[in-house]
Amino acid sequence: MEKYYVFKSLAIIIIAAKIMGLGARKIKAPQVAGEIVAGILIGPSVLGLVGYSDFLGQMAEIGVMLLMFTAGLETRISELRKTGVKALLIACSGVFIPLICGSLLYFAFYGFAPWGSEQFFKAVFIGMILTATSVGITVEALKELGKLSETVGTTIMSAAIIDDVIGIIVLTIVIGFKDPTQDVSRTLLMTGLFFVFCIVFGYIVYRLFRIYDRKHRHTRRIPIIGLAMCFALSFAAERYFGVADITGAYIAGVILSSLKDSQYISRKMDINSYMIFGPVFFASIGIQNDMSKFNMDILVFSLAFVAVGMISKVIGCGAAARITGFKGRDALKIGCGMMTRGEVALIVAQRGFTVGMIDPSYSTSVILLIIVSSITTPILLKLLYNDKSQGKEVTADGTAG
Amino acid sequence: MEKYYVFKSLAIIIIAAKIMGLGARKIKAPQVAGEIVAGILIGPSVLGLVGYSDFLGQMAEIGVMLLMFTAGLETRISELRKTGVKALLIACSGVFIPLICGSLLYFAFYGFAPWGSEQFFKAVFIGMILTATSVGITVEALKELGKLSETVGTTIMSAAIIDDVIGIIVLTIVIGFKDPTQDVSRTLLMTGLFFVFCIVFGYIVYRLFRIYDRKHRHTRRIPIIGLAMCFALSFAAERYFGVADITGAYIAGVILSSLKDSQYISRKMDINSYMIFGPVFFASIGIQNDMSKFNMDILVFSLAFVAVGMISKVIGCGAAARITGFKGRDALKIGCGMMTRGEVALIVAQRGFTVGMIDPSYSTSVILLIIVSSITTPILLKLLYNDKSQGKEVTADGTAG
Repeated sequence: MEKYYVFKSLAIIIIAAKIMGLGARKIKAPQVAGEIVAGILIGPSVLGLVGYSDFLGQMAEIGVMLLMFTAGLETRISELRKTGVKALLIACSGVFIPLICGSLLYFAFYGFAPWGSEQFFKAVFIGMILTATSVGITVEALKELGKLSETVGTTIMSAAIIDDVIGIIVLTIVIGFKDPTQDVSRTLLMTGLFFVFCIVFGYIVYRLFRIYDRKHRHTRRIPIIGLAMCFALSFAAERYFGVADITGAYIAGVILSSLKDSQYISRKMDINSYMIFGPVFFASIGIQNDMSKFNMDILVFSLAFVAVGMISKVIGCGAAARITGFKGRDALKIGCGMMTRGEVALIVAQRGFTVGMIDPSYSTSVILLIIVSSITTPILLKLLYNDKSQGKEVTADGTAG
Repeated sequence: MEKYYVFKSLAIIIIAAKIMGLGARKIKAPQVAGEIVAGILIGPSVLGLVGYSDFLGQMAEIGVMLLMFTAGLETRISELRKTGVKALLIACSGVFIPLICGSLLYFAFYGFAPWGSEQFFKAVFIGMILTATSVGITVEALKELGKLSETVGTTIMSAAIIDDVIGIIVLTIVIGFKDPTQDVSRTLLMTGLFFVFCIVFGYIVYRLFRIYDRKHRHTRRIPIIGLAMCFALSFAAERYFGVADITGAYIAGVILSSLKDSQYISRKMDINSYMIFGPVFFASIGIQNDMSKFNMDILVFSLAFVAVGMISKVIGCGAAARITGFKGRDALKIGCGMMTRGEVALIVAQRGFTVGMIDPSYSTSVILLIIVSSITTPILLKLLYNDKSQGKEVTADGTAG
C-alpha cells in the first residue's frame, strides 16, 4: 500500500474522534469515551473505513507515553504534604480493595487458581485495571458545585495522586511477573533497582534542568529535552529493568513536575497529544475492539466488572475516609469522587493485552466501566451535596442547579 | 523487534537534532542543516545508533505535510496585492531561470536527452529542486539590518510567496509526468481539475470555517479540523488526481490562511512540528543519506549544483527586478535575498526520490546548497547594505554591526 494511505486513516480518525468526543461531552460523558466509540464506528466492526496497522499501533504507543508523561508532570508533590496521612490511607485502601475484589471477580467467573499460576496473574491483572482512579471528571463536577477547595475536594485530589503512584508500583511488579519462568526475587530486585536508578538519575536531571530553567524560562528546549528524556526512560525501563515503559514515562514526568516550567512543558505535550497522538490512541482502542467477538459471556462479565469496579472503590476509599475521621456523608462523597476511571485504566489494560497477560476482548469491559463511572459520579456528587446544603450550591458563576 | 525500541530511536533523534540544530544556529547556519547533520551522525554512515525504518519514514512523511501545511497557512494573499506585478515578474523569472539552468546542468553532466524521455524529466526535476526559495533566513537578516519594511524587503517577501505558488504548480505538473506511459494531456487535465476542485472545495470550507471561527475564536477544534483537512486533501490529491500530496497539504494551508485564526492554527502545527515530526523528518534525511555512496562524481556535481543554484537565482530575480525599475544595487539585494533555499527544496527532492524520479544520492547536493546559500545570503546582504548607508544600519534594538 502506498504511503499516502496513512493520511486517509489519520484524517478519518481525527475528524471522527473530534465529532464523537464533542458528542460525548454534550451528554456529560468523558470525551475519551466518545473517541473510543469513534474508533469502533470507523473500525472493521462497523464501517470498515480504517483498519488497524503497525503504524497506528506505534503512533498509539507514542500517544500513551505522552499521556503518562503529562500525568507525571501534573503530579503536585507539594500538595501531598498538606493532606498527607489521611490521603495516603484512602489511596491505599482505594487501590487494594478494588485489586482484591477484581481478582475475586475473575476467580468467581473462571475458577480459582493457585498463587503464581498464569491464571492467577490474569486474575490479579483484572484487579489491577480497577485500581487507577481518574479524577478529571470529579474535579470538574466539584468545580461546578463550587466545592473543589473544601477539605473533601483537596483530599480527593491528593488521594488520586497517591493512588496513581501506588498503582504504578503495583503495575510494575505485576508486569514484572509476566514471564512465569522468571524468578520472583529477581523481578522484585530489578523493580527496586529501577526505582533507585530513577531517584539518582532523576535528582541529577532535575538539578540540571533547574539550573537551565532559571536561565532560560519558556524556551522550546526544555519541553523538547523533557520529551527525549521521557522516551529514553520508557525505553530504559523496559529494556534494562523489565519494567513497563509507561512507568518510565510517568516517572520522567514526575521528575520534571517540580520545575517552574512544568506547566509549560505539560501544555506543549498536551498540544501534541490532543492533535494527533491522543485521538489515534483512543480511536485505535475502538478499532482493535473486535465487536464480532462480543457475546453474552463478555456482556455478563462486563456488567459484573463495572459493578465491582465502582462499588469496591466507593467502599475502599469511603471506609478509609470514615476511619480517618470524615463524617459519614463526606466519606461517601470521597468514595464517589474516587470512583471514576479514565485513560489510565485503559492504558493499563492495553499493556496487559500487549504483553499477552489478558485477552483484548476485555477492553469492552474497561470502556464500559469508564463510560458508566464517568456519567454516574457527577450525578451522585450533585445529589450528595444537594441534600445537605440546598440553595448554597449556586456558585459565583451560577452554573449549578 | 519490540515496539519500545522506537522510543530509543526517537529519544536519540530528538536530542541529537536539538543539539546540532542549536550548534548550527551558533555558526549562523540554519537549524535545519544542523538537524540533517545530526541524522548523518547518528545514522548508519557514522555512529549507527539509529537505522532507517518504515515507521520513521511514515513519521517523516507526516512531518512534511505539517511543514507544507504551515507554509500554506503563512501565505498572506493580501500582501500580494501591494507589490503585485513587480513581485510576480521577479518570482516568475526566479523560478524559470533556475529551472532551465538546473536542467542544462544535468544535461552538461550526463548528456542531452530528448523531450519526454526519462532522462529528460530527471533533468527537469534537478532544475525543479532549484526553484523553491526559502526566505526565512533573508527575513531574519533584513530584520537585523532594520530593512524588512522597506520596498526591497516587502518585494522579496511577496516574490517568495508567488515563487512558492508557481513552484507548487510546476512541481505538480512535473510529478504528473513521472509515469512515462501517461498521457500528457491527461496529466494536464487532472492537474487542472485538481486546482478547480481545490477552488470550489476551498471556498466552501473557508466559508464554513469563517462562520465557525467567528463564533468560537481560539477553540482547539479549528486546528484539529484543519489538520484533518490537510491530511484529507493530501490523500485526495495523490489518490484521485495523481497530484503530489504535498501540493494538497500546501493548498489546505492556503485555504485557511485568510482566517482570523490562521496564526493560531499555524502555532499549534508548529508545536507538533518542532517537537517530534520536524526533527524526525530532517534527521531521517541524514539517516537515509548513505555517505558510503559519496564519491568524487557526486562531489563535483554538488559543487556545480550549488554554484548554478545560487547564481541562477540571483540573475533570474535580479534581472527581473532591474527590468521592473529597481536600481542596480537594489536589484542585486533582491537577487541575493531570494537566493536562499530551505526545507521546501529538500521536500521537493525527497518527493523525487520517493517516486523514483531521481537518485537519493543527490540529497547531498541539496543539503550542500541549503547550507552554503543560507550562510552566504546574510553576509552578502550585510555587505550590500553596509556599503551604501554606513552608520545607518544600527536599528532600535542595536543588534546590527
